[in-house]
Amino acid sequence: MDTFPDRLIAAIDRKEYPTAVGIDPQLDLMPPALVKRYFDQYGQTHTAGALAVRDFTLRLLDAITPHVPAVKLQAAFFEALGPPGMQVFADMLLEARQRGLVVIADVKRGDIDSTAQAYATAYLGNTVQDGNLAAGFEADAVTVNAYLGMDGILPFLEAAKAHNKGLFIVLRTSNPSAGDLQDLSIDGTPLYERLAALVQRWGEGTEGRTPYHIVGAVVGATYPAEAARLRGLMPRTFFLVPGYGAQGAGAEDVRACFNPDGYGALVSSSRAIIYAYRREPYRALGEENFAQAATAAARAMQQELAAVLRPS
Amino acid sequence: MDTFPDRLIAAIDRKEYPTAVGIDPQLDLMPPALVKRYFDQYGQTHTAGALAVRDFTLRLLDAITPHVPAVKLQAAFFEALGPPGMQVFADMLLEARQRGLVVIADVKRGDIDSTAQAYATAYLGNTVQDGNLAAGFEADAVTVNAYLGMDGILPFLEAAKAHNKGLFIVLRTSNPSAGDLQDLSIDGTPLYERLAALVQRWGEGTEGRTPYHIVGAVVGATYPAEAARLRGLMPRTFFLVPGYGAQGAGAEDVRACFNPDGYGALVSSSRAIIYAYRREPYRALGEENFAQAATAAARAMQQELAAVLRPS
Repeated sequence: MDTFPDRLIAAIDRKEYPTAVGIDPQLDLMPPALVKRYFDQYGQTHTAGALAVRDFTLRLLDAITPHVPAVKLQAAFFEALGPPGMQVFADMLLEARQRGLVVIADVKRGDIDSTAQAYATAYLGNTVQDGNLAAGFEADAVTVNAYLGMDGILPFLEAAKAHNKGLFIVLRTSNPSAGDLQDLSIDGTPLYERLAALVQRWGEGTEGRTPYHIVGAVVGATYPAEAARLRGLMPRTFFLVPGYGAQGAGAEDVRACFNPDGYGALVSSSRAIIYAYRREPYRALGEENFAQAATAAARAMQQELAAVLRPS
Repeated sequence: MDTFPDRLIAAIDRKEYPTAVGIDPQLDLMPPALVKRYFDQYGQTHTAGALAVRDFTLRLLDAITPHVPAVKLQAAFFEALGPPGMQVFADMLLEARQRGLVVIADVKRGDIDSTAQAYATAYLGNTVQDGNLAAGFEADAVTVNAYLGMDGILPFLEAAKAHNKGLFIVLRTSNPSAGDLQDLSIDGTPLYERLAALVQRWGEGTEGRTPYHIVGAVVGATYPAEAARLRGLMPRTFFLVPGYGAQGAGAEDVRACFNPDGYGALVSSSRAIIYAYRREPYRALGEENFAQAATAAARAMQQELAAVLRPS
């Protein structure tokens, strides 16, 4: 059976570009008329917000599915809407999977032992001997935090092996204070490179038809020199590269995340795509055509990437 | 208005002991007859599991409320039961707060910018200008992961200030692989001590009637020498100390987490309390009296702590 990286690469080949759309549904950035409709009907409630997010996300999925191989759903924006938001989170993960998209649950969970196992059960599937409940929020892959070490990773790795899923460990982020911990020098090596060696090791032996491990890494897009170095340190680790567009990174910045084989990275853009209707040159489409604007922005991002990855 | 540490200390004074019961509801450890009743009625569903967890948790809350100042609810076990589990998580956070317990949502979330803000909104309350939705899963305090640095902490700190809440940053865990990252040496100082300096700084200026900061730290219970050193490095930081009992730590091990004023730590025990009915000397009570066993185990833990903290 194909591993998660095998399936991801097949999806990338089908859609021609290694890109994901990040679904970060924020009520204050979504089309005001769409949001207002639900709040008018259901009052100032989590249900109103969750239904607005559902409508917004479904229309985005319909529009982008023919064009991108993967989506990354950000749990936090669903969680902020309480239990109704989490119901919509589960529903949207399923809707995206049913459309054939590769679906990443961006949850950055991190704990140990039975607690980490419970999180792995929630997103990847059960590994308890007598556990026969389905995953509560099933995705193809999940993002994980490694501050607690291997004990926090192993339950996810076991669930990924058992259910043919993947994980991406938060390795290097591109926010201004990323360096507070990640840049600290261990005998001349930054902490995130030490973690890179662990991530590489944790993934060993999980290759499939393709040489990539089921343990990937989240690598922020804005430091090309670092990305190049990490790419060399962990050649068989798939990178999930968020922050394209809105966080300031462009095609040149992410080139170093790819291997010579043209694979090894999935570039994700969230706000620059799903809120494209708010900016030029898409504004003229009108807020009611936000999904069309998102599709156009996703295709523009793909063209930018192609110019760098496959120069003619 | 009293800060979170002020309220926590008042609750500790009322109940006489600095202890929390950790609610980690695992179906395979809960009383089999209780679990079976719901699965017989609702089939092999998340709803059945969530209703069993609800029943179990409510009976625990009823039993322990007169005896302990605080509870820590572990999100992972509710998340594993999908949307019905998250509904019960929200309900149980509210039930515990309505009983006057200090309620910690153990979620260990960690992300940046608007994403971290969404998580803070979910657990502590909204800080967005036009945000007027309630917290989806309101607690008195939340656990947070700091691998992404200050950018990931600031939204929680702002929400805690705005809504009179607290946070505990995961600093030092006591699992076998905790050292994978936490022990790495930065010019002779372990990483977790570097984080300790940041946690101390992030909390400065948030003192209330008591000298404690609203930014606390999660400090595992099994390394007394480390706890003593951390206690000295961050005297105004409240420690949340999990792992008492089941993870092998006893009263002598946690003594160093306290300040000379007798405060500064909240010792939490999960499995050793809520599953006490499975072990001696509580087994004879029978599984139907699990809540009574939990109460007896909580009181025994408090006596052990008192002997060390207030030697006669």
